[in-house]
Amino acid sequence: MNRVLISVIGGHKADKKARDLARQTGRIIARLGAILVCGGLGGVMEYAAQGAKEAGGLTVGILPGEKKKDANKYIDIPIPTGLGYTRNTLVAGCADIVVALPGKEGTLSEIAFALTAKKPVIGLHSWKIPGMVCVESIVELKRKLKN
Amino acid sequence: MNRVLISVIGGHKADKKARDLARQTGRIIARLGAILVCGGLGGVMEYAAQGAKEAGGLTVGILPGEKKKDANKYIDIPIPTGLGYTRNTLVAGCADIVVALPGKEGTLSEIAFALTAKKPVIGLHSWKIPGMVCVESIVELKRKLKN
Amino acid sequence: MNRVLISVIGGHKADKKARDLARQTGRIIARLGAILVCGGLGGVMEYAAQGAKEAGGLTVGILPGEKKKDANKYIDIPIPTGLGYTRNTLVAGCADIVVALPGKEGTLSEIAFALTAKKPVIGLHSWKIPGMVCVESIVELKRKLKN
Amino acid sequence: MNRVLISVIGGHKADKKARDLARQTGRIIARLGAILVCGGLGGVMEYAAQGAKEAGGLTVGILPGEKKKDANKYIDIPIPTGLGYTRNTLVAGCADIVVALPGKEGTLSEIAFALTAKKPVIGLHSWKIPGMVCVESIVELKRKLKN
Repeated sequence: MNRVLISVIGGHKADKKARDLARQTGRIIARLGAILVCGGLGGVMEYAAQGAKEAGGLTVGILPGEKKKDANKYIDIPIPTGLGYTRNTLVAGCADIVVALPGKEGTLSEIAFALTAKKPVIGLHSWKIPGMVCVESIVELKRKLKN
Repeated sequence: MNRVLISVIGGHKADKKARDLARQTGRIIARLGAILVCGGLGGVMEYAAQGAKEAGGLTVGILPGEKKKDANKYIDIPIPTGLGYTRNTLVAGCADIVVALPGKEGTLSEIAFALTAKKPVIGLHSWKIPGMVCVESIVELKRKLKN
Repeated sequence: MNRVLISVIGGHKADKKARDLARQTGRIIARLGAILVCGGLGGVMEYAAQGAKEAGGLTVGILPGEKKKDANKYIDIPIPTGLGYTRNTLVAGCADIVVALPGKEGTLSEIAFALTAKKPVIGLHSWKIPGMVCVESIVELKRKLKN
Repeated sequence: MNRVLISVIGGHKADKKARDLARQTGRIIARLGAILVCGGLGGVMEYAAQGAKEAGGLTVGILPGEKKKDANKYIDIPIPTGLGYTRNTLVAGCADIVVALPGKEGTLSEIAFALTAKKPVIGLHSWKIPGMVCVESIVELKRKLKN
């Protein structure tokens, strides 16, 4: 009841570094007792969910398509929406806090939506947009999320 | 992983009978090991979520507004959407099975959407629309959900 | 400025009778000076738009897909949404008045949404849901729309 | 039939310079024979619509709320959506071309969505995001839109 939701956003294509950041971010979120929300697909979304599961957390994937099976295997609760890219607004809008990792325009759209909705957005190796809090390391991210 | 999602739909105003049906439906869903999805507000949504929690289940509330706190107190995972009534399509569309209890036009819109999306819809004291499976008692509902 | 919007809803598969009703409905709407809104695809949507164009009207098609070219050839203003079936809520919700012609579950979902949004819904050979005004002929529909 | 749709995006609060840019942009769009789409409210949206009407164009306003009357007075076709900020994805996604004028996070979300959807985005005194074409004057914007 009343659990904190933290969305992790980032590209569906992710290099080694982004994958590591995502997995560590997922673990931090789970250890804080928060629920991890993401877009449910591959790349940053998958590695973040994997990290959360490794730390015993709960994961929600808000999917663009209509099929539950599109979700990556670390998603506990897949929410197929059939909304296409518009589901980005839900990923950004449903969370208490948004963590932005490396990504392209899709990630930028989620950052912008989160800022429009007055959500706290923490960026780590991601876009730098006025209104975000930008950190440079996982350690710093952890500290920010704890507060 | 790969858990079944069952949506319970019905009015936000519910009389004694509808509340009882909702609560019992929530319990059945939780005992089947499925996740209960609903619109997250009062009436049938609240009693269904209460039943699921009493039986140790997990509950998701897909909310019309932008605020997590709009959710009733039995919702584990509130998903505020800011989509207004349009969120009905998500409640109907994200589930593997939809259970329709007493309700008005909002409930009808969810039934119709679920049928459009080719989801199985089981009605209990609700609208009777071609394509739905209509049952007359909780016992019968339980039997249908087990199959 | 401040022009009336009338949505025509009905199946994408339409028999001869439904096509005639749709075309005549489109003509009536255009002659009243109202803008015709529909789902932009085939069947009832296309014949209604054709009727409106024959009478010199303006037509809007709110499309489920992301491509403008999905619109039928009588649509002046195609609005691709990428929302899938969820776009039904927009077709129903943006209008001042909704006219329901023969159709299946998709049409029912639009009727239910329109009623949820407290819109006047006039049915002609369509679903009969409490809260709708049901008429039996084009002449009667015309009379209702004039008021 | 098959008319070009051009969306103009920008802040609902606009200073003198932004208002002038918006109005001139609206005129250019109308003179090209394209339909102007915007978010239907005040600021850049209103001045762009005003410009389009002054040049004899047609204007569509995709509104966040449920009421047609929220539209500014230069909107011919108001589309109330009830989707809140999520309507931004429709403003960005339904157009053939997007013109970005000065604005804040809401404008950025529309730019990002348009880029995600592979739409051409021309910016004039707006955000500068990789993938956009950025121009520095109305003359240059006009030239780009003509091609």
